[in-house]
Amino acid sequence: MILTVTLNLALDVTYVVGDVDWNGMNRVGSAHRRAGGKGVNVARVLTSLGHEVLATGLAGGRTGDAVLADLALAGVTADFTPIAAESRTTLVVSEAGASGSRRNALFNEPGPVVAEDDLARFTRHFAGLLRDADAVVISGSLPPGTPPDFYAGLAAMAAERGVPAIVDADGAPLRHALSGRPAIIKPNADELARAASGEAPPRTASRPRSADADGSANTHGSANTERGADADRSAFADRAQALRSAGAESVVVSLGARGALAVTPGGSWRARMPREITGNPTGAGDALVAGLALGLVEATPWPDRLRRATALGAAAVAAPLAGDVDPDVYLALHPAIGIEPVS
Amino acid sequence: MILTVTLNLALDVTYVVGDVDWNGMNRVGSAHRRAGGKGVNVARVLTSLGHEVLATGLAGGRTGDAVLADLALAGVTADFTPIAAESRTTLVVSEAGASGSRRNALFNEPGPVVAEDDLARFTRHFAGLLRDADAVVISGSLPPGTPPDFYAGLAAMAAERGVPAIVDADGAPLRHALSGRPAIIKPNADELARAASGEAPPRTASRPRSADADGSANTHGSANTERGADADRSAFADRAQALRSAGAESVVVSLGARGALAVTPGGSWRARMPREITGNPTGAGDALVAGLALGLVEATPWPDRLRRATALGAAAVAAPLAGDVDPDVYLALHPAIGIEPVS
Repeated sequence: MILTVTLNLALDVTYVVGDVDWNGMNRVGSAHRRAGGKGVNVARVLTSLGHEVLATGLAGGRTGDAVLADLALAGVTADFTPIAAESRTTLVVSEAGASGSRRNALFNEPGPVVAEDDLARFTRHFAGLLRDADAVVISGSLPPGTPPDFYAGLAAMAAERGVPAIVDADGAPLRHALSGRPAIIKPNADELARAASGEAPPRTASRPRSADADGSANTHGSANTERGADADRSAFADRAQALRSAGAESVVVSLGARGALAVTPGGSWRARMPREITGNPTGAGDALVAGLALGLVEATPWPDRLRRATALGAAAVAAPLAGDVDPDVYLALHPAIGIEPVS
Repeated sequence: MILTVTLNLALDVTYVVGDVDWNGMNRVGSAHRRAGGKGVNVARVLTSLGHEVLATGLAGGRTGDAVLADLALAGVTADFTPIAAESRTTLVVSEAGASGSRRNALFNEPGPVVAEDDLARFTRHFAGLLRDADAVVISGSLPPGTPPDFYAGLAAMAAERGVPAIVDADGAPLRHALSGRPAIIKPNADELARAASGEAPPRTASRPRSADADGSANTHGSANTERGADADRSAFADRAQALRSAGAESVVVSLGARGALAVTPGGSWRARMPREITGNPTGAGDALVAGLALGLVEATPWPDRLRRATALGAAAVAAPLAGDVDPDVYLALHPAIGIEPVS
């Protein structure tokens, strides 16, 4: 079983609205509600692929209940630690009006303030669940009140029990996690740069608008020239090696439309996308992580592991909702993704 | 006891956000959740004034539970009919950034689709509650699936039992309600014009931005000249008389910063505001209705009734949250509101 951890569980709400009046009253055409949070998305992808998975984390209040009910509906096995505070909601206002304006505004609540006792209860629960876990995926932001080295502690507990851990986080939680000796960390280009420099994540990050799901590799102007791409690749590899030296066994850098880079004990590989996939990049990184987790438990060689993970990430871009993958896109893309060793 | 009816109960959520990126990711600084819906606001005001009130209507799902929990916290007595569908959420994104931009975007979900059986159960419940009611206030939109003459039926049931009803609605539900012979209807200027013309409410209405809470009296350009104001007043009085002829005993037209107009069997009066109140106009019409309900059960003469109701409406503008009134503003304004007969 693959165990996924989502400490900052979310109810993801999407409002589809016509031409939005940003200083006025808007009637919502349709409202969708769905279980969210990065670990939950990973669990959805693994469940849809028929793999045994258990989603855990913290769930509180009526919002937490709504998320758990939606997970049950989706057939995702879940065993969350109940907390007193209310789980958060995230909202996307998606414009679909006659004017052709297609803005998407995302609003992320910070999440419940978690009590020390909640974390202690979760840690005990996590220790029990590790017994049946072949791998553990630790994803997403920490809710307020959680110490920044919390993921490091979870990864170390897993490592002690011989369970490989994947950590997909940002900023201080990711930097601290290295001391827990995770099997894989999966930053995007921006997260990699921040982890290497010690810089904090921005308070308001621009939302990715293309298949470059996992951050902003294409905000590097130099990426458009081969020379620039080589320079970037070299910088990514150097930073990834630095994070390996700091404790991660392997580092996979997701580069959105430009593929991914894996830096591992057995070598480094670059995955190249045969074409750009357009769609909803939210959740693409989570699908890629699901692919890495499958590769871990099946002990797939790294080139194949990277190809499958990258194909799953792209197939998630083609599916409208985070946590879903488009099987046709997966089947078409998977054999066409080029894997080349990086020296 | 004053009975308030809220068929389209809401959980009113407010997100306070810095400078909003309307096509990107925003971290929500603070999220507030509060019971909402026009009838609920009326019940809040009456409760805060120490009057015995019972809030009823339809409540469903976890959102309905959250609303009922908040009402209990506020000390508002409530007895809602449970429905299977989920009660709606409304959202205000309130901008409070360093740039000084202060836009407020309101998103209204349509509400649950109500089953025929839900309405039948509510009607029986309502009949029972009428026994102890001195007056009933029927406010707000009808949830999807409710026939447009539903308020007419409720008002007629109340009238048969000698309980005076106030209806605060728009469009077809308001026009139909006249056949139920309500004691008072309370349109704003736009709703009055629509009720008289048979026009449907707009799909997206501009949100009032000033103390002109209840619609858009100040969108009439002529309102700035005395001649224009006289012409408007005369048009308002004519339309109100037409609605009286169609079945309403009295018509009170809320005019926001310009006060209110009452057209009754015993004469017509105009309330004039001594000064403009700035603040949050949402809920001002509900506070005005609460004042009208108090006047009904206490059989206050119309000039005094109109003065109190108008003062409560203005005191609600001065309070930051819908359903609250600022007692200091009420005390200061009440004696200063001019009431003059309209011939």
